[in-house]
Amino acid sequence: MCTLVNVFAVKPENQQPLIDLLVEAVEHTMKQLPGFISSNLHKSYDGKQVVNYVQWRSREDFETMMHNPLAQPHMQAAAALAESYNPVLCEVSKVMESVQR
Amino acid sequence: MCTLVNVFAVKPENQQPLIDLLVEAVEHTMKQLPGFISSNLHKSYDGKQVVNYVQWRSREDFETMMHNPLAQPHMQAAAALAESYNPVLCEVSKVMESVQR
Repeated sequence: MCTLVNVFAVKPENQQPLIDLLVEAVEHTMKQLPGFISSNLHKSYDGKQVVNYVQWRSREDFETMMHNPLAQPHMQAAAALAESYNPVLCEVSKVMESVQR
Repeated sequence: MCTLVNVFAVKPENQQPLIDLLVEAVEHTMKQLPGFISSNLHKSYDGKQVVNYVQWRSREDFETMMHNPLAQPHMQAAAALAESYNPVLCEVSKVMESVQR
């Protein structure tokens, strides 16, 4: 499995619009692509960031999406709405849960 | 629920040591604290980042942990090993899964 953690910095007035745009991108396009597993979208409490935590079956599936002309307009629109973004492509190293569960 | 997404920038030789340090922090301390749910640790493929995705029951539980003298040495050690870090405290806005599942 391959995980993309993308932290977008936004103006507070653009936080919800960026969430809406990313929801549309996933619902209309990403969900249908081979290897897409899930996307969890987060709003920071300070209003200045959006975090997209996305899981793909493999790194190859992620790279294939990056070159997909159906996906590119969504990514460009998200980039245009953000002040900056830091996409981190990574592998899960360790999962730890509470002893109280 | 409250999510902390912390992206650490590291020198490549410090990526695995930071993972090890965070595993120890969770296993020895965080896991026992009220409201801790889970921690998923990730290594970036480029070797230069570590992402800790942590879920807490509430923002209050997270804030209480931040002032806990048992937790502080772990956080200081992690900060010292990293070049920089960007902790984003956020709420889950939307969860979307593949249509193929």
